[in-house]
Amino acid sequence: MKGFAMLKIGEVGWIEKDRPACGPNDAICRPLALAPCTSDVHTVWEGAIGDRHNMILGHEALGIVDEVGSEVKDFKKGDRVIVPAITPDWGEEAEQRGFPSQTTGACGGWKFSNFKDGVFAEFFHVNQADANLALLPEGMSLEAAVMIPDMLSTGFMGAENANIPIGGTVAVLGIGPVGLCGIMGAKLRGAGRIFAVGTRPKPIEVAKAYGATDIVSYKDGDTVEQILKATDGKGVDSVIVSGGGPDILVDAINLAKAGGTISNNNYFGKGMFDKDYLPIPRTGWGFGMASKNIINGLCPGGKVRMERLADVVTYGRMDPALMATQVYRGFEKIEDALMMMRNKTGDVIKPVVICE
Amino acid sequence: MKGFAMLKIGEVGWIEKDRPACGPNDAICRPLALAPCTSDVHTVWEGAIGDRHNMILGHEALGIVDEVGSEVKDFKKGDRVIVPAITPDWGEEAEQRGFPSQTTGACGGWKFSNFKDGVFAEFFHVNQADANLALLPEGMSLEAAVMIPDMLSTGFMGAENANIPIGGTVAVLGIGPVGLCGIMGAKLRGAGRIFAVGTRPKPIEVAKAYGATDIVSYKDGDTVEQILKATDGKGVDSVIVSGGGPDILVDAINLAKAGGTISNNNYFGKGMFDKDYLPIPRTGWGFGMASKNIINGLCPGGKVRMERLADVVTYGRMDPALMATQVYRGFEKIEDALMMMRNKTGDVIKPVVICE
Amino acid sequence: MKGFAMLKIGEVGWIEKDRPACGPNDAICRPLALAPCTSDVHTVWEGAIGDRHNMILGHEALGIVDEVGSEVKDFKKGDRVIVPAITPDWGEEAEQRGFPSQTTGACGGWKFSNFKDGVFAEFFHVNQADANLALLPEGMSLEAAVMIPDMLSTGFMGAENANIPIGGTVAVLGIGPVGLCGIMGAKLRGAGRIFAVGTRPKPIEVAKAYGATDIVSYKDGDTVEQILKATDGKGVDSVIVSGGGPDILVDAINLAKAGGTISNNNYFGKGMFDKDYLPIPRTGWGFGMASKNIINGLCPGGKVRMERLADVVTYGRMDPALMATQVYRGFEKIEDALMMMRNKTGDVIKPVVICE
Amino acid sequence: MKGFAMLKIGEVGWIEKDRPACGPNDAICRPLALAPCTSDVHTVWEGAIGDRHNMILGHEALGIVDEVGSEVKDFKKGDRVIVPAITPDWGEEAEQRGFPSQTTGACGGWKFSNFKDGVFAEFFHVNQADANLALLPEGMSLEAAVMIPDMLSTGFMGAENANIPIGGTVAVLGIGPVGLCGIMGAKLRGAGRIFAVGTRPKPIEVAKAYGATDIVSYKDGDTVEQILKATDGKGVDSVIVSGGGPDILVDAINLAKAGGTISNNNYFGKGMFDKDYLPIPRTGWGFGMASKNIINGLCPGGKVRMERLADVVTYGRMDPALMATQVYRGFEKIEDALMMMRNKTGDVIKPVVICE
Repeated sequence: MKGFAMLKIGEVGWIEKDRPACGPNDAICRPLALAPCTSDVHTVWEGAIGDRHNMILGHEALGIVDEVGSEVKDFKKGDRVIVPAITPDWGEEAEQRGFPSQTTGACGGWKFSNFKDGVFAEFFHVNQADANLALLPEGMSLEAAVMIPDMLSTGFMGAENANIPIGGTVAVLGIGPVGLCGIMGAKLRGAGRIFAVGTRPKPIEVAKAYGATDIVSYKDGDTVEQILKATDGKGVDSVIVSGGGPDILVDAINLAKAGGTISNNNYFGKGMFDKDYLPIPRTGWGFGMASKNIINGLCPGGKVRMERLADVVTYGRMDPALMATQVYRGFEKIEDALMMMRNKTGDVIKPVVICE
Repeated sequence: MKGFAMLKIGEVGWIEKDRPACGPNDAICRPLALAPCTSDVHTVWEGAIGDRHNMILGHEALGIVDEVGSEVKDFKKGDRVIVPAITPDWGEEAEQRGFPSQTTGACGGWKFSNFKDGVFAEFFHVNQADANLALLPEGMSLEAAVMIPDMLSTGFMGAENANIPIGGTVAVLGIGPVGLCGIMGAKLRGAGRIFAVGTRPKPIEVAKAYGATDIVSYKDGDTVEQILKATDGKGVDSVIVSGGGPDILVDAINLAKAGGTISNNNYFGKGMFDKDYLPIPRTGWGFGMASKNIINGLCPGGKVRMERLADVVTYGRMDPALMATQVYRGFEKIEDALMMMRNKTGDVIKPVVICE
Repeated sequence: MKGFAMLKIGEVGWIEKDRPACGPNDAICRPLALAPCTSDVHTVWEGAIGDRHNMILGHEALGIVDEVGSEVKDFKKGDRVIVPAITPDWGEEAEQRGFPSQTTGACGGWKFSNFKDGVFAEFFHVNQADANLALLPEGMSLEAAVMIPDMLSTGFMGAENANIPIGGTVAVLGIGPVGLCGIMGAKLRGAGRIFAVGTRPKPIEVAKAYGATDIVSYKDGDTVEQILKATDGKGVDSVIVSGGGPDILVDAINLAKAGGTISNNNYFGKGMFDKDYLPIPRTGWGFGMASKNIINGLCPGGKVRMERLADVVTYGRMDPALMATQVYRGFEKIEDALMMMRNKTGDVIKPVVICE
Repeated sequence: MKGFAMLKIGEVGWIEKDRPACGPNDAICRPLALAPCTSDVHTVWEGAIGDRHNMILGHEALGIVDEVGSEVKDFKKGDRVIVPAITPDWGEEAEQRGFPSQTTGACGGWKFSNFKDGVFAEFFHVNQADANLALLPEGMSLEAAVMIPDMLSTGFMGAENANIPIGGTVAVLGIGPVGLCGIMGAKLRGAGRIFAVGTRPKPIEVAKAYGATDIVSYKDGDTVEQILKATDGKGVDSVIVSGGGPDILVDAINLAKAGGTISNNNYFGKGMFDKDYLPIPRTGWGFGMASKNIINGLCPGGKVRMERLADVVTYGRMDPALMATQVYRGFEKIEDALMMMRNKTGDVIKPVVICE
């Protein structure tokens, strides 16, 4: 079968591989819709998770079930499904501790294009199909639904971890698609005022549609100072970090009130100083005592998460399709879509590929 | 001064009283807008909290500061303020434990028309003014703002206590104004599907505007069965109880999934059986083991709560004025408004009185 | 194979059954140590979960692995293991929602002697062996270890759900073995003063050893009044319910401070009134508004829970063997042990059977 | 009156000041017992919170009430009291948000020897006396009780913030008195195995008495590697940071399992790199996605906290007097005690001064 792969750090291309084998609890799917992710860009061109050779890329997909293992009860060949970016090992030790995305080690629930081949292939493998797949609701647009596996799940997690009170004030740093879903997530948790930090025009338009009340640009001066000024020096209850360089936590911590929460949604592709560090500002952190908690996590996966996110769309709480700024038709267009993601211009949020 | 009072159980009327005295941390306010509450009805005609004599009624008000004590720093005569229905004793033991509405004993933060005269008076007293009052934002409509002190605060609490996941399924039992704010609160916490149980036409209209996706009426059969059927027998993640008789917890528990939460917002005016009990269904509660937690509370008060709720309105997350179905002008109309609350008809949600 | 079974409501006896079959993820074990539970008594003589025919009893066991399925990686024939009373379906819907004990429906993680044959058999079946079994630490006494699967797990849950602050005051209602573990659990969460309500001499001795500071007996008057008096009328932060009749929640709620937590650990074998209800006191519950939350749950199962509880014993935080008041030798003695559990006298806490 | 003060950075001495004035809600106390804190050392000799001139030092005290304001109800002249190191402004904005130690800004509840004169004086001032003071239980030893205001409150907070499951594995970095109370706190939350990192003999003895199961010394090699090896590479559930240099979070994060919690109790007197940073290790933090939350806070204060901690001592859950390794008699000995704290030797944990 054909797949679009990371050949090595800095290089991508089409390769041929064997169709994956299906264990008793597993499923094999064909792609129905795909989307490239900034993580794919980090993985290939920053080497963020280390080197990989001839590994098929991609972890955002809708699929059509092609085969199921003997123990699978809830799915059959032909089912149209939402495939979570993260497919935990349910029952494993970290999952029993409450952290399904961390099974078998840090970030171990992230299997596609990390520990095994990804979804940019004619066929891909899903572990524990009954626990990980969800049926695609009839009538849901593919452009909307393909945002669920990672964008909505990760973006909303940023808000869920941010301890937002109803009516609370929130700052979202970064307005890529995950940042936009962080804004939407903040609105879905009841935020009052929402600051969004970013400059590109199309994302700003969607940020407003998703609930941002104030747009802050570095072009108008230091963004921390702007937000502090707008809040009479108080800062914000919650900061969601969805972009920025390796020192973005400095801004985030300086923006938060004492007692505020910093929720990190960033995939840090690189660190600072000679030992690959991310810096915390000592004074802004109250010398270690300001009750500014720093929370992080990896996109939640699994069937229940996917079903709940689908309900958010079904019941009209948001329209994810606003983010699908470039729509390609045909599986082989995933290459163009990835390159578009790499070289974002002002009107790109998320390119998607409809395969059927 | 003049005030509209409970004379004894079952009887109300206008009385004369001395203007209240102002301690060093206190404020005396005049009413700017008022609203009667179902609790006033329970208190007077059900005798729900026991007998009271010549106690001025009312706990929902916007005010104009008329006098402040020597220690008050944040307010001065003439300020227009939101007055929370619940004015906790900040620093007291229960407050330090995390329960400001329960200071000096169960429900002890509820002082107006309970432990002291209420707000249906030419002047009323506010304890710890700096901690309890909030400035009324300029330009906010009085019909909207007067919903904040109790309706929004209580209704949203119902949702906040209900442990609603983003995309979760919720049932709200009762569509009086607190139930409607429970629906809105559920939406503000990210609910997907929201069932609202009720029959009166005007509240149904607002329920839909506030986020209800399914309206359930007892006229179409048993409401528990209808919701179970609509969810393929699964039940709901969260139940918010905002109405019903003394056995309403039976429905609530039977509706919840194992692991679901029952959030009570009801002020139970009476109980059942000869010992004034509220029943839990043994089987529906899994013989005591189904992880169906029953959470309750009293409307949160205080400045920060009021400011956050004002932000919900300021930033357009909801329009509370949709509930102001009857608007009276003139302080003395509070009597008519209370009677309207007592004898609700199909088009009444909340009568309000604009005093200036 | 031979097993000791519930023949029907009210009747027990030895029966012959086929050895259970082992699926790919499962294990078959032989008993190493067993203990009867009050639940077995409820099940047989109260018919608490409905009728069952020729169902082998028992859910508290240590085992020796006799066979494992093809997919099992962590265990092999001959391993000595702790078998949790509750063996969740990991990955199932309720588990993904955070409630592993409620998989496939309310209390559905409780499979032994409920949905399938129990452990009082020559061989018994364990689902998802890798996720549910834990190795028995070398050198741990069997009398101590056999308390882990249910007594420690359930009793500690009572304390974990009770929201006990360090230095908080707790009341534990009932000093059967689960109540004793509730006392120990309260101590392990940092409780200051712990009231234990009970009368039998041997349990009182262990209650004190496990951390109870005050023993309260109904023989000295109303137990609620005694505890309220001892706390200057304040009541307690947390109540753990581990015994009492169908109206025990009345006492529990009346004992709790406003803002206190009632944690139910009772398996309610029967209810009250003609509709099988458990009563909540309206006034004691603050008319529905006193922030007295009622939390319940079913014994947590699974490997991680068993390993953590084993560490509690290994690192000397408690000695569960104090509860093993009657020790029998030989598998067939399980009948005597169950009868001893049914007809408790003053010096019985928990009979155990050592099978090897 | 006489007081022992920080004259400027690096310099201390006795000074004369006016007795503080007593507002309506306040109290003036005389010292009954005092203890110097490592924070005093940081403040004076590291200039950690910036320069201060002629500011009386000290925030750990038991007191005798000498005067109360007109509004104080619960205390009178002559009462013997526990004085919390942190005396929040109850009712203030941050307190209403749930962070009493952060009132009026980051760490603003820390008033003694920070925003006003401290307790190393013949008289000292306590704001909001009813909410901040607690009666000293009769019969409690002063050496034990003087550990409550800061050591127990801060140390236990480290454990409370660490999300320790019953039976969980914990590492405590640092075995000064706060670290020792972190160990005790971990035991009080139910930890199984507890690693303590330190080398001085007397603290090691107390660490074991307080619940440490494994002592780890840098003299035996890298401490992170030792703990990882002892846990078969798994790491620990919770890390409590109570010592170490500005890069100690690196160790802490590398020690935690994915999904583990890092609870900071350190007062960082200085940072790293040219911008005063505290480093997080990018890889150890899972590139920002390993669910390793970093929680911090400032010692909780207030009456309820002091009463609960007193109950921990009263009911025999721990003996704080084990830490009082040097006991001085007479108020003027506070100078010697502070110098002893500065120049700790192997047998010093905490010097205390008994004033009466």
